[in-house]
Amino acid sequence: MKLQVTQENLAKALSSVARIANSRNALPILSNVLLKTENNRLSIAATNLDIAITHFIGSKIEKNGAITVPARLMQDFISNLPDSVLDLELTENKLKINTDKYHSTINGIPAEDFPVMPAIKGDNLWNIDAKEFKKALSQVVLAASNDDARPVLTGVYFHAEGGNVIAAATDSYRLAERKVGKSKEAINFLVPASAAADLLRIISDGDKEVAVTHDEQQVLFQVGDVTLVARLIEGNYPDYKKLIPSKFETTARLTRADFLNIAKVSSLFARESAGSITIKVEDKSVSINSIASQVGENTATADAEVTGGGEVTLNSRYLVEALNAFSTEDIEFCFNGKLEPCILRSGSDPSYLHLIMPLRS
Amino acid sequence: MKLQVTQENLAKALSSVARIANSRNALPILSNVLLKTENNRLSIAATNLDIAITHFIGSKIEKNGAITVPARLMQDFISNLPDSVLDLELTENKLKINTDKYHSTINGIPAEDFPVMPAIKGDNLWNIDAKEFKKALSQVVLAASNDDARPVLTGVYFHAEGGNVIAAATDSYRLAERKVGKSKEAINFLVPASAAADLLRIISDGDKEVAVTHDEQQVLFQVGDVTLVARLIEGNYPDYKKLIPSKFETTARLTRADFLNIAKVSSLFARESAGSITIKVEDKSVSINSIASQVGENTATADAEVTGGGEVTLNSRYLVEALNAFSTEDIEFCFNGKLEPCILRSGSDPSYLHLIMPLRS
Repeated sequence: MKLQVTQENLAKALSSVARIANSRNALPILSNVLLKTENNRLSIAATNLDIAITHFIGSKIEKNGAITVPARLMQDFISNLPDSVLDLELTENKLKINTDKYHSTINGIPAEDFPVMPAIKGDNLWNIDAKEFKKALSQVVLAASNDDARPVLTGVYFHAEGGNVIAAATDSYRLAERKVGKSKEAINFLVPASAAADLLRIISDGDKEVAVTHDEQQVLFQVGDVTLVARLIEGNYPDYKKLIPSKFETTARLTRADFLNIAKVSSLFARESAGSITIKVEDKSVSINSIASQVGENTATADAEVTGGGEVTLNSRYLVEALNAFSTEDIEFCFNGKLEPCILRSGSDPSYLHLIMPLRS
Repeated sequence: MKLQVTQENLAKALSSVARIANSRNALPILSNVLLKTENNRLSIAATNLDIAITHFIGSKIEKNGAITVPARLMQDFISNLPDSVLDLELTENKLKINTDKYHSTINGIPAEDFPVMPAIKGDNLWNIDAKEFKKALSQVVLAASNDDARPVLTGVYFHAEGGNVIAAATDSYRLAERKVGKSKEAINFLVPASAAADLLRIISDGDKEVAVTHDEQQVLFQVGDVTLVARLIEGNYPDYKKLIPSKFETTARLTRADFLNIAKVSSLFARESAGSITIKVEDKSVSINSIASQVGENTATADAEVTGGGEVTLNSRYLVEALNAFSTEDIEFCFNGKLEPCILRSGSDPSYLHLIMPLRS
């Protein structure tokens, strides 16, 4: 292997793949990144066996080849070099990196030892605007579970319904659902939330489109010069639709900033009670009460347009995170008594819905 | 106690004192802040028994009084309130905080239980420009020791010499010394580095002057509306001057950015060897070599004006931190062989000197 790349391109590629390699891995070689010449480009890849990310960059290749090198050292080293052209040359598993002022040798492990995820069979399924996809995914992924006891709940569920693609996630305490573009294909797959979080990091402001392909076992997301392949979660996703009430006794319309502010302040007094806050909707206002017997209590009020009225007790963290997930100025908060799910939605963006189960008070 | 303050002033005061209260304290009341009316102002104070910080803010006082309340809750709560006028009223150790939309009660502990540091006897000793003092202190404090085995080395040593005030710190591996203004008084005191670090946080860009007063046991720094009182460290500071060589066989002049860059890149390869890097000064260049037997090696070079020539081995962290402490564009790196201390200084700012002891290579 002998080639030239710019410091800027190599540093960018390493920063997008190295996080996967830097997570704690069982096999030592998984802490390495794979550098490999492919069709006049250099590919930089990392995998943790569940997710693989590959970044392609332009390169002037004199001699083909491949090697794996320690991800963390390589990333720190390249990102600290000045913006210049780097000469990379491989001699017996030693990667030499030279500029006029820097001369380095990094000891590698042969590329043959690096695990490769199987290729995906199947055609491109669905293309979506990158900016919209990033926003949608970030609004949904926060509701996925961290608890491996029910693996299906640790995923983001993509499915098509009447020509719309819908992404949903729930940890059984809350649920987020978002329309994410259109497709005529029969979409139905479950992506690990951790892969979705990595995908969010990869999509940058300059990217235009995300192309999605999947087979029975894996999904591939193509974003600009980067591909992310993830192993799908097996199993049937619960029929979450039946959780979402269709009618509400009580609806409050208020500005998201006001609701977020009173929710945040109230959460400070709810630390003792595991985040429990009581929301009271009455004539023209939403007020939140939180009580900490040791430290004190707080009531915070915001103006609102109200239909109906009543009280419900929620976990303040879920409410604050839900309100942060919206980007609209207005918010609607709807519920039916103390025991049924609460819904957050916005009149100005009907594509997103957030549900929170109440606490028993 | 009954008074009105603005949210902005109270939030600012709490943020400057709460860190002291939030550190782990033996006495529960030290996790509280003391609010107290004094001469038509409200004082907000915290102490850990070694350091006390008091912030005074303007206040419309209807009834005098004092109370202590949990620092963390109070700080988080006030900083999350909207910018408005707050009504504070004390009823039987309960502090009520009201705005039109927020109604809170915070349970306090009586002010009588709050420890007060003894008053300082003595006149104002020395005044210094706040910006210069902040810069000087930040350049010196990094060289102080964290090791309580030799308490005097955990301090910043202030002393007057020929009309100049000089601040110095050393952990016996490195040393920093800086001129910090002028005074005709006989200055000679040792401030804990932790108090110096708190002082750095308190001095803000808008502050004009720092006034210093001390007696046998304590020092008081007055900055704008804030006072910091610290218990002095007892003991004689070592005669560090004799460590500083007066002549050098080898001197290299180069840009600080270049030196910092090659030092940082080299330090990446020095992780295995506890940061050990070898600096070689020769005709027109400074180069740094670092070897990690497992992962590889690196040589990085920068252009320099050189007198003499030779090699010395240093801890890369000390070199990087020293170079970061300067703000000049140029740097001089001077040494006498492999065993004597190295000096970093700048032709464009002779008031600061940084010394690093070599490693035995």
